[in-house]
Order: sequence, then C-alpha cells, then structure tokens
Amino acid sequence: MTNHKVTLAYDGTCYSGFQLQKNANSIQAEVEKGLSIIYGSAIRINGAGRTDSGVHARGQVFSFHADDRVPAQALPQALKGLLPRDIVVWRGEQVHDEFHARYHAKKKEYCYTIDNAPLPDVFLRKYAYHYPGNLDVQAMQAAAVTLAGEHDFSSFRAMHSNTRGGNVRHVEKFQVVREKSLIRIHILANGFLYKMVRIMVGTLLRVGEGRIAPGDMEIIVASRRRSRAGPTAPPHGLCLERVYY
Amino acid sequence: MTNHKVTLAYDGTCYSGFQLQKNANSIQAEVEKGLSIIYGSAIRINGAGRTDSGVHARGQVFSFHADDRVPAQALPQALKGLLPRDIVVWRGEQVHDEFHARYHAKKKEYCYTIDNAPLPDVFLRKYAYHYPGNLDVQAMQAAAVTLAGEHDFSSFRAMHSNTRGGNVRHVEKFQVVREKSLIRIHILANGFLYKMVRIMVGTLLRVGEGRIAPGDMEIIVASRRRSRAGPTAPPHGLCLERVYY
Repeated sequence: MTNHKVTLAYDGTCYSGFQLQKNANSIQAEVEKGLSIIYGSAIRINGAGRTDSGVHARGQVFSFHADDRVPAQALPQALKGLLPRDIVVWRGEQVHDEFHARYHAKKKEYCYTIDNAPLPDVFLRKYAYHYPGNLDVQAMQAAAVTLAGEHDFSSFRAMHSNTRGGNVRHVEKFQVVREKSLIRIHILANGFLYKMVRIMVGTLLRVGEGRIAPGDMEIIVASRRRSRAGPTAPPHGLCLERVYY
Repeated sequence: MTNHKVTLAYDGTCYSGFQLQKNANSIQAEVEKGLSIIYGSAIRINGAGRTDSGVHARGQVFSFHADDRVPAQALPQALKGLLPRDIVVWRGEQVHDEFHARYHAKKKEYCYTIDNAPLPDVFLRKYAYHYPGNLDVQAMQAAAVTLAGEHDFSSFRAMHSNTRGGNVRHVEKFQVVREKSLIRIHILANGFLYKMVRIMVGTLLRVGEGRIAPGDMEIIVASRRRSRAGPTAPPHGLCLERVYY
C-alpha cells in the first residue's frame, strides 16, 4: 500500500462542509467517490481538518492509503473528470507510510475577505462578505495584534462545541490588509477552535465600526466568555489557504 | 418624464443573455421587473447592446424614461432588494432627454480571460476559459496588433448573422497580457459584429498554439470568410467592461 498526500481547492458554496456527513453532501464524499472509481474499491480519506458548510479552500490537504496503480503526481489529472467542477485536486505526492493529514498538520492559514464597497462586487458575492460602511482598518489591525501569540481562545469558540486538548492556541500571524474596496484578514495558527476565525472576524468588524475599542480585546480574551466577543461572520468569506507540515 | 442612464454588473452564467427573449430568462427581464415594482407600471429599458448567453458584464449600460419619484443616484440602493444577487446596478444618473444607451454608445471595451494553468482555478471556473498548454503570448499580441485599426471584420462575424451598417469596425485597442497563469485579452472598438470578440479570441488561441502564424492574420482579414478564422471561444470568459459615450 502506498500513502498519498493530496492538496485540493474547492468552492464550498454547495456543500455542507468538508467532512463526511449523513444525509448531506460533502467534499469528502465527492472525493471518496472519485477515488473509489479509480481504485475499484472504497477509499477512506483523512482530511487535515474540517471546513464548515459554505467555507472554501485553496489548499486543503488529505491523505489516504491505496495501491500504486496511479502515480501520486497523476492523481490531479486522473480525478479531473471524476469530480464536480467546484472541486479541483491540484497536487498529489507519495509520502512516508506514517503520514496523516490531520495528526501531522503543524499550522493552518486562513484568509477572510470582506467586500467593503457600498454595493457588492457581483463576481465576489460567493467569496467575500459584503459589509458596506466605514471600517477603521487600523483599529482592526491593532485589535488583531492583541490576539496574536499564545492565548486561551475560549471567548472565540462556538458555544456547545467540544474541543479536545484545551482552548490554548498559538496565533503566529494575524494581519488586516485593505486592497481598494476589499479587506483581507490573514490568520496563521497552530490550530483553531470551532468557528474561531469567523468569531474573530465578527469581533474585528465591531472594532472597525468603533463599537469595540482595540484595547478591549485583552479583556475579551481574559474573560474566556463567548458572549463577550462579536458575532460569527458568515462562512462564504472564509477560505482555508494552506496547511503546513 | 425623466431620462435615466444606469450602469450595472452581472454574472451572466444563469441567463440567456442581456436582451429580452420569449421563453428564456434575461438580464433585461429581471431589471424591468425590478423597475416596474419601483414605478408601479411597466418599464421598458434600452440596453447599450446585447451580451450573449453566459457572457458577463462589469459596465453594461441601459437607459429608460420614468417619473422622478426616485432620484437617479438612488436607483442602485432602490433596486438592491429587487434584483437577484447576480445582477448589481451600481450607478444611476439623470441624463438629457434624448440620451439613448444604444444609439449614443461610442465605444465598448471587453475583456476575455483565459486560465492557462494546467488545472483550473476553481474560483474562476465561471469567469475564465480554462485552456491549458503552451501559449505564445508574444505571437498572440503580434496577431492582435494586425487586427487593430479599421477593417472589414467579416471573417470574425458569426455566420448567418445580420448586421446593419456593414462589417467595417474600428478596433482602437487590442492587448494580450499575461498575469501569472491568466491571459487577459482587452479589446476596445467603436462596435462589434455578432460574436466578433469570441471568434477573435478563438483565432488568437490558434496563433498562441502555433497553428496560425501572426503574419497570416492579414490574409484571414482580407478573405472576409468566417471559415478562415478560428473557432468561437466560449462565452464564460467574456466580460463587457465598459461602454463609452
């Protein structure tokens, strides 16, 4: 058996998330269906992590074991005709037998895109959160700096979610960048709690509007209470950019 | 009665083109429906020109007469909730009574986008023509230069199409630009024959592949025969960028 590491992009609009679910379509189900056609038997893949319903990816990763009838590098072309057009596998690599896409992931990078124009860009409507009105990007950046580093991020974890291994994460990079009408929020961390990025973005938007002071971010973190942070930003602005190993 | 000039963007994926049609959905039908709700009576608009089924626009223009119950500048916000999310009206202006979006259009600018990466960018799949393989952009640009200027463009007109006013058009700008994996073809002219841009792009792709020499473009133009030019590129790579008055 050969172990494979595969990188893919997807438009999450029409899916109930990456992970396999009963009675709902998922990226994983589509990919496993395609791979099962190639290998002639059921294939189970291990994703680097879930992405929620409606969240996109440019660099999601999964691993799986199978025989070597297809060279790993040929998987993108082999899967091309077997996957719907909103899922594109773009890299296949052979990896050592113990590699596991989730257990060995060291960091993940996400980007959240806000369309801050008065009227939405029609071509970005599924990939950016349209949020018109004045937003103070410098204040948002100042708040983001407060969140960088190692913290207990309980305040930014969806309520009623279970996370193994506690709520401390290390945020290595947290940048808020304006590019004309778009605001892009880049975040790189060793792990994320459930809906953490979207709650952080919702909180930064409150900061951008002047409803939360950047200096209050420390208090919000220290409270470890979800109710202190802002609302959860919608999924369609979020994209998993890269998984680091 | 007040005369209005309105600029809009749309994702043409789900429409049978701009122009009103029997038994098919169109941008015009959606816009007229929205305007008729605002004005309480049937409104007929005049578009700057048709766009074909599946073609997009960032800067399509139409004009219409109606009473002044809504200031022209407020039309974008007024229409926002009345149009589907793939149509965004982004500018309204009051104009002199004789203005007509089609008759007074002086030039139009289109952009055709080619995704030249080995595998398609999933987020551009509806807005760029995925065409992998080696393409010689310099040769394509040389061919485009030959087509610039005033010519009889009969070779680049869809067969069986009727065009009033002959087949001579003036192409003011015709640029082929590579931006990483994307190739963008910009074309500005005083008018276009039916499917002219897409036939030109299909011909330039043959040039890019080395199947037509840039120097043969003059012969193709002089032949005035559609059969000499290349195939018609698909609609989804094409976008009407701007109409000049």
